[in-house]
Amino acid sequence: MFKINQNYLKLPGSYLFSDIGRKVNAYAAAHPDKRIIRLGIGDVTQPLAPAIISALHGAVEEMGDAATFRGYAPDLGYGFLRDAIAENDYKARGCDIRPEEIFISDGAKCDSGNIQEIFSLDNRIAVCDPVYPVYVDTNVMAGRAGCYDSRTETWSDVIYMPCMAENGFAPDLPKETPDIIYLCFPNNPTGAAITRGQLQEWVDYANRVGSVIIYDAAYEAYISEEDVPHSIYECQGARTCAIELRSFSKNAGFTGVRLGFTVIPRELKAGDVSLHSLWARRHGTKYNGAPYIVQRAGEAVYSREGRDQLKEQVAYYMRNAAYISQGLKEAGYTVSGGVNAPYIWLKAPGGMSSWDFFDYLLEKANVVGTPGVGFGPSGEGYFRLTAFGSYENTVEAVERIKAL
Amino acid sequence: MFKINQNYLKLPGSYLFSDIGRKVNAYAAAHPDKRIIRLGIGDVTQPLAPAIISALHGAVEEMGDAATFRGYAPDLGYGFLRDAIAENDYKARGCDIRPEEIFISDGAKCDSGNIQEIFSLDNRIAVCDPVYPVYVDTNVMAGRAGCYDSRTETWSDVIYMPCMAENGFAPDLPKETPDIIYLCFPNNPTGAAITRGQLQEWVDYANRVGSVIIYDAAYEAYISEEDVPHSIYECQGARTCAIELRSFSKNAGFTGVRLGFTVIPRELKAGDVSLHSLWARRHGTKYNGAPYIVQRAGEAVYSREGRDQLKEQVAYYMRNAAYISQGLKEAGYTVSGGVNAPYIWLKAPGGMSSWDFFDYLLEKANVVGTPGVGFGPSGEGYFRLTAFGSYENTVEAVERIKAL
Repeated sequence: MFKINQNYLKLPGSYLFSDIGRKVNAYAAAHPDKRIIRLGIGDVTQPLAPAIISALHGAVEEMGDAATFRGYAPDLGYGFLRDAIAENDYKARGCDIRPEEIFISDGAKCDSGNIQEIFSLDNRIAVCDPVYPVYVDTNVMAGRAGCYDSRTETWSDVIYMPCMAENGFAPDLPKETPDIIYLCFPNNPTGAAITRGQLQEWVDYANRVGSVIIYDAAYEAYISEEDVPHSIYECQGARTCAIELRSFSKNAGFTGVRLGFTVIPRELKAGDVSLHSLWARRHGTKYNGAPYIVQRAGEAVYSREGRDQLKEQVAYYMRNAAYISQGLKEAGYTVSGGVNAPYIWLKAPGGMSSWDFFDYLLEKANVVGTPGVGFGPSGEGYFRLTAFGSYENTVEAVERIKAL
Repeated sequence: MFKINQNYLKLPGSYLFSDIGRKVNAYAAAHPDKRIIRLGIGDVTQPLAPAIISALHGAVEEMGDAATFRGYAPDLGYGFLRDAIAENDYKARGCDIRPEEIFISDGAKCDSGNIQEIFSLDNRIAVCDPVYPVYVDTNVMAGRAGCYDSRTETWSDVIYMPCMAENGFAPDLPKETPDIIYLCFPNNPTGAAITRGQLQEWVDYANRVGSVIIYDAAYEAYISEEDVPHSIYECQGARTCAIELRSFSKNAGFTGVRLGFTVIPRELKAGDVSLHSLWARRHGTKYNGAPYIVQRAGEAVYSREGRDQLKEQVAYYMRNAAYISQGLKEAGYTVSGGVNAPYIWLKAPGGMSSWDFFDYLLEKANVVGTPGVGFGPSGEGYFRLTAFGSYENTVEAVERIKAL
């Protein structure tokens, strides 16, 4: 008789975003006259930029002609896209990353979930708290997280690194030594960033203790401050300790287009086995490449027109971020984030819990956000708003909150 | 210090298709004047059908307009595509499969590699021999295959079911009882098909012993005979023992577009845990949906124009298959397949090994095929040719082989 992977059963019953969806739907059904504004899930709303639309149409045409039709893509991605990434995201920032160290994929969610497979089950992972749920959940599924304590909402074998107001939402080096460290900066959900100097400390630490850092830089396009690094490879020594994950979802609005990449430098090794060769093996065995037309769309992100148009798109969302941040401060809220990231992290007023504030905002202002506790126990009492709505909705949401 | 997944190191050094590529490149470099015809890898060559191109352009337009832009897709796929599949691939064939039992993905390779994750590590798998390498390799990576014996080219914990001329390339029920049975019909690489009655025996067997069948039906569009089932759900009782994998790669030329789906009926359970819920959890946690534009292209596969155009495309390839099959028979080869599948399976002449015949064909006819032994030990002495080339190249390749 076949047997299931019991680790799946350890996962708590439902998802954060399903819980939110259920509550919002129930409220909407009971109050059909109310116009609900959703600043909860981190999905973009602006259409794809003209340069990208044009590249997509062009690639579709190629697929309709036998002379230019493309079948299976190279497992690790087309050279034209890997070259554009190496040039624009790395060389232009002084990072030594070669095209063949870049693995094209269908997005950072898949990569951040799959990357743990190349490590053995007895590695100890460390995560920020609060954190994007995929890092922990995928390790639970693999059997690397131990047991769940529903009281503390933590896993016995996971090292949690609290990110609170007290440490500026930047984790301290952990007391126990982890094997694998997940870092995401600019951060989801807190919107916090760390400086190049702070990240250098993590790189030095990882090299010293023999940890590997999985660095999720999905939000790098939102960085506005000079001393905040866009890539971990801006730090000395990162080539021997860091994997970087990147996404086209937030810088180019590809949440429904699906494109991302992972960087693994050749020097990153366990003994004489390079992680690059293991990930290449996984990619080649379990994956069949991102669609040709999508990879051409990715290339257009780096064209002159594409870059100009996307700079405007990012600025549009960051205007929302500034509006939310400013408006909430005026209303007396304690607010952070929103400067180098499209997320605003606020303290629920009057000692309210995250979920109490969620209900309050939904019922009194008809605005949907995300309860901070959904990202981890240290998120309790906090709340996330995203800047990815339309400007008009963002303004109205803020006015409603200010009017409470 | 982080530790790698040692199972990856158990995999034999290189891939079948990399070995072939290396040999072909070396030959081409040494003989730049020779025109090599490739009938090796199973990649399509005909452009996307007009109905699909039109759907892609339409969806791209939608993505460029704020009013119709789509962000994250539903985890399990858009309703319009799941409905079209349920209606056309299942209801029209009398199979009881509901849209919510269909999980849209970026292709059957990913699904066939990922599906093993929802099972525990102590399940015993059974595979046909020869077989598509992904089933075994992904179980090796997970640690479910035991040790590799390089002499027999088999894994200690895998149950092999030989498919040879003697049994019509259809596996016999295994002597040891497996927990998970991988079946692929019409078969890659042999091109063999099994009848509805034969598949019913497998379904009855699986229900009797408590195995789950992972049924890869990627080539169903090539079926020409009446009593060959297109889906395992044409068999009584399949809803309690079978998962079905489907691809758009071969019926619609989507190898570079990337779309597939997996069907898990609600009744398929281990105790009171449904595999449907586990796969939904995996999809939701590690995957972010197939691109909207690609799902619209998938929908067009089921439109009237799409179906008519793709029937022609399949007929085009099957004309190649008939040509290869007929030509090789005339030249005295022992040939099977090519009737319900785009693959021709031939016996290397004069007791040659698979690789000797590969070299012989490359050097004497400048034709590339795939050595049967690359798919498993029972493939030794056999050779695969695909019907996915252009008609002109196919004709020339056959003439060259006949002239040897």
